[in-house]
Amino acid sequence: MNLNLSPDELASLCQAQARRGSCPIPVTGIAALTEAAPGDLSFLGNARYKGEVLGSLASVILVPPDYKGAPGPDQELLVVPNPSAALALICARMEQALWPRPVPGIHPSAVVAPGAQIAASATIGPLCVLEAGADVGEGVHLQAQVFVGRSARVGEESWLSPGVIIAAECKVGRRVRLHPGVVVGADGFGYEFVQGRHAKVPQVGRVEIGDDVEIGAHTTLDRARFGATTIGAGTKIDNLVQIAHNVRIGRHCILCAQTGVSGSTVIEDYVVLGGQAGVAGHLRLGKGAKVGGGAAVTTDLEAGVFVNGSPAIPLMLERRIAVLKQRLPDLFRRVDTLEQQLAREKELPPAAAPANIRGNDRLPAQDPLG
Amino acid sequence: MNLNLSPDELASLCQAQARRGSCPIPVTGIAALTEAAPGDLSFLGNARYKGEVLGSLASVILVPPDYKGAPGPDQELLVVPNPSAALALICARMEQALWPRPVPGIHPSAVVAPGAQIAASATIGPLCVLEAGADVGEGVHLQAQVFVGRSARVGEESWLSPGVIIAAECKVGRRVRLHPGVVVGADGFGYEFVQGRHAKVPQVGRVEIGDDVEIGAHTTLDRARFGATTIGAGTKIDNLVQIAHNVRIGRHCILCAQTGVSGSTVIEDYVVLGGQAGVAGHLRLGKGAKVGGGAAVTTDLEAGVFVNGSPAIPLMLERRIAVLKQRLPDLFRRVDTLEQQLAREKELPPAAAPANIRGNDRLPAQDPLG
Amino acid sequence: MNLNLSPDELASLCQAQARRGSCPIPVTGIAALTEAAPGDLSFLGNARYKGEVLGSLASVILVPPDYKGAPGPDQELLVVPNPSAALALICARMEQALWPRPVPGIHPSAVVAPGAQIAASATIGPLCVLEAGADVGEGVHLQAQVFVGRSARVGEESWLSPGVIIAAECKVGRRVRLHPGVVVGADGFGYEFVQGRHAKVPQVGRVEIGDDVEIGAHTTLDRARFGATTIGAGTKIDNLVQIAHNVRIGRHCILCAQTGVSGSTVIEDYVVLGGQAGVAGHLRLGKGAKVGGGAAVTTDLEAGVFVNGSPAIPLMLERRIAVLKQRLPDLFRRVDTLEQQLAREKELPPAAAPANIRGNDRLPAQDPLG
Repeated sequence: MNLNLSPDELASLCQAQARRGSCPIPVTGIAALTEAAPGDLSFLGNARYKGEVLGSLASVILVPPDYKGAPGPDQELLVVPNPSAALALICARMEQALWPRPVPGIHPSAVVAPGAQIAASATIGPLCVLEAGADVGEGVHLQAQVFVGRSARVGEESWLSPGVIIAAECKVGRRVRLHPGVVVGADGFGYEFVQGRHAKVPQVGRVEIGDDVEIGAHTTLDRARFGATTIGAGTKIDNLVQIAHNVRIGRHCILCAQTGVSGSTVIEDYVVLGGQAGVAGHLRLGKGAKVGGGAAVTTDLEAGVFVNGSPAIPLMLERRIAVLKQRLPDLFRRVDTLEQQLAREKELPPAAAPANIRGNDRLPAQDPLG
Repeated sequence: MNLNLSPDELASLCQAQARRGSCPIPVTGIAALTEAAPGDLSFLGNARYKGEVLGSLASVILVPPDYKGAPGPDQELLVVPNPSAALALICARMEQALWPRPVPGIHPSAVVAPGAQIAASATIGPLCVLEAGADVGEGVHLQAQVFVGRSARVGEESWLSPGVIIAAECKVGRRVRLHPGVVVGADGFGYEFVQGRHAKVPQVGRVEIGDDVEIGAHTTLDRARFGATTIGAGTKIDNLVQIAHNVRIGRHCILCAQTGVSGSTVIEDYVVLGGQAGVAGHLRLGKGAKVGGGAAVTTDLEAGVFVNGSPAIPLMLERRIAVLKQRLPDLFRRVDTLEQQLAREKELPPAAAPANIRGNDRLPAQDPLG
Repeated sequence: MNLNLSPDELASLCQAQARRGSCPIPVTGIAALTEAAPGDLSFLGNARYKGEVLGSLASVILVPPDYKGAPGPDQELLVVPNPSAALALICARMEQALWPRPVPGIHPSAVVAPGAQIAASATIGPLCVLEAGADVGEGVHLQAQVFVGRSARVGEESWLSPGVIIAAECKVGRRVRLHPGVVVGADGFGYEFVQGRHAKVPQVGRVEIGDDVEIGAHTTLDRARFGATTIGAGTKIDNLVQIAHNVRIGRHCILCAQTGVSGSTVIEDYVVLGGQAGVAGHLRLGKGAKVGGGAAVTTDLEAGVFVNGSPAIPLMLERRIAVLKQRLPDLFRRVDTLEQQLAREKELPPAAAPANIRGNDRLPAQDPLG
């Protein structure tokens, strides 16, 4: 989304307390201080970067009251109480322009089965499919090519992007935002091994998504074996995340991209999972626990802990071990030396160290440390 | 899917041998013993949980013949030979209600090219696209918004969920179930580096999926460079899995969510890959090999082995090393002590341990172990 | 794609210098020397496999001028200057047959908003949606069920497979190929934690994809917070990859399947990321850096380095440590022995090694090494 705002409009929008310098052109973009070009708006969000204001090519810069520098030529400084908050105001304005409120109604190309319920203020975009018993609340926007299955429910003011799929009987709360390709309610992955084959265990539960949840592109949430896979209110899930059957995620959690949560695990409120983390099945992660990116959680976690690594252990221990691991070549050499010293002294052969396990036979030939 | 069955209907459906107590309300859900509320059905599937029956709030509980406890108030115990099998019967009934058999025919909004073949008993749902030469067998159900490309084939009784994409010339077997967004036959990832650019290697093969395969949401299977990428009969693949070009997967394998298999690797029958596992290219995984979650397989595997870790090594060794890794801080201290003892004794400086590689300079300042 | 070419047609197509033997049947497939059956074409692409030509069942084999062996019965050897290049010629011919040039025009089932711009030579396939201001260049092919949002642009000769989604205001270059389900321009994952909730940070930037880029199935690219997430010309991205907001990827990079790049990271030209690799946010990966499969990059990388492991360190060190890690059980035993020797000598107890941290209490009981 490009801006197109005059410095006067900007000053008014972010309620500037004072203006220094003057910019002759409209502002059409936003960029960091060091990356901005003429026509861009920038901002001093953190005193640490004060030195970057002076050389910035931005046409307009939001600065805090205690910034005393002078503007460059054709540059205007807008003094605001909180530059980050002022920028957020401008971005919120841009967001409204980027995603304008759609006109309510059902696009003629949508396929709505008899018995689907659509609130009067909802917008059903082109080429959506609503099966019988689908129930779409007031103010909902199904953008395009969305599928809502039999007896599924989408709560008030929710926004489903193109390609979202809500399978039969699943429930989506209010003000939920689902990005392109989110799949809600595919079958859980459950089989019994019978006579040399994997026999399917029926997956007859559903998924329930709380209010104010946001879920990223192509994330998949499996329906429960029975009962429900649940996502608590206010939780935010990134792209390409996998939530298995019967998982229960609390309120206000953060799951970064490409994480995976295995079946029946319970994640309490305010838990944070870093990108590509994996959580084994049937575990409980206590309130506010934090898991580093790529970590593999294989045990229950106490509330508030921060773990990392694979398998995940407390962060400080994991970091210390990561450092020590890099010193292993030296440690092996030190033990070699100790054994040689002791052997010389005692004229004893080193006790438990046969030659073949010291060799470098499994290292590539070009290893400079070999 | 909610149940709505009277205790009498339940007793008849699971052929109860005896009934104890009486429940005045219909059963509308299923839940574990400790989580059940009035109106729920529960079951004692494992003698270990016998103690949980007594306090359970479930209205009806399936118990084995050797369970002797009394029902609670307004609670009925149904005695069945095998509670898990009885539950499976009930779930299978629910599954039929959740996914009713569709009426055969082609939805008027589907776009079927001249020259596509559709069997009389197949159901082509709304907004599907079938290109010329697409061939859809008897009893197939394309639920909605499915794409079947030129000369692709979908075998008898297969079920393709919304958003599934079968690219040109790919073959899907019989009784296959593809969950939402499965992509069959995207190009393999092959380039030659020529004069500073990556030149595309044409990917003109196909994907062939055997009978009774099930594949999870948003899993991607790439077409072969030439010949076929193949998935053997009875194999089950979870969500968000990546199968690269020319991979050959045997029969009755299990691939958990977010695993990735690189090009040309051969996976023999009955192999199990845990979630987020990765397998390098051009390998062979022997029959029945098991790979732990998150493991990275970089070598061929013998039949029947169980490996874990990154790179993957035999499970028992990997577990032992995981434990020893956590003792590294102590081991470094022990070697420090040994060197000091020997140095005191001999009045020699420790041989191969310069100060800078013992320091904690790379540890965070707040490290309590520093 | 199956071939159906006579040996004469093949000889002409790859400009054979000489022909030895004779094959009576048309060629209908391509396979490696050891896997070929009658009817297949094969090739000797690497002198290493010379020994495999003799026993191959292929009907026609492309061989280099210095291959002197005789053909088998009903087998023809075509002598060409470069068998791999000759095979590429044949595959390119097959690729044209697999993906024939579509007829320009707009399918009547596509939903094109007033104000969308479509070049005369573009093909808009069935059930595509183009919002107002969408701009599709000459020779573009939107295969089917593609979504192009408001004011988004698709450059000349690009090909978007079924289910591709281009969100509002994003830009796709020329000759770009997007495989099924690629999502361009979902919101970045940005929140501020305010009063116990995650408040959304508006994501009002866009995605810009350069010329000659290819992106695999279900890969997701997030729009920038402001400004643009950018993919440089000639870069190739595999399936199920996650590119976060404000990432900047250079030219001619390779990102293998299931990799993830966190927000604001800069990846310079010619970088290669192995499958399932993860890159933390706000980093810079120097030109031509290489990252092994599954590696976790947590620091900036110098140009040209090759790193591996989690956290990623230089490859040679990582390999050496991987080997030493497997020798940890032995190292612990050696240190035990040293301590015992020294204690016997001095009649001193081992200094810093309390019994409980040597025990095997955390190992599984069945550990044969315990």
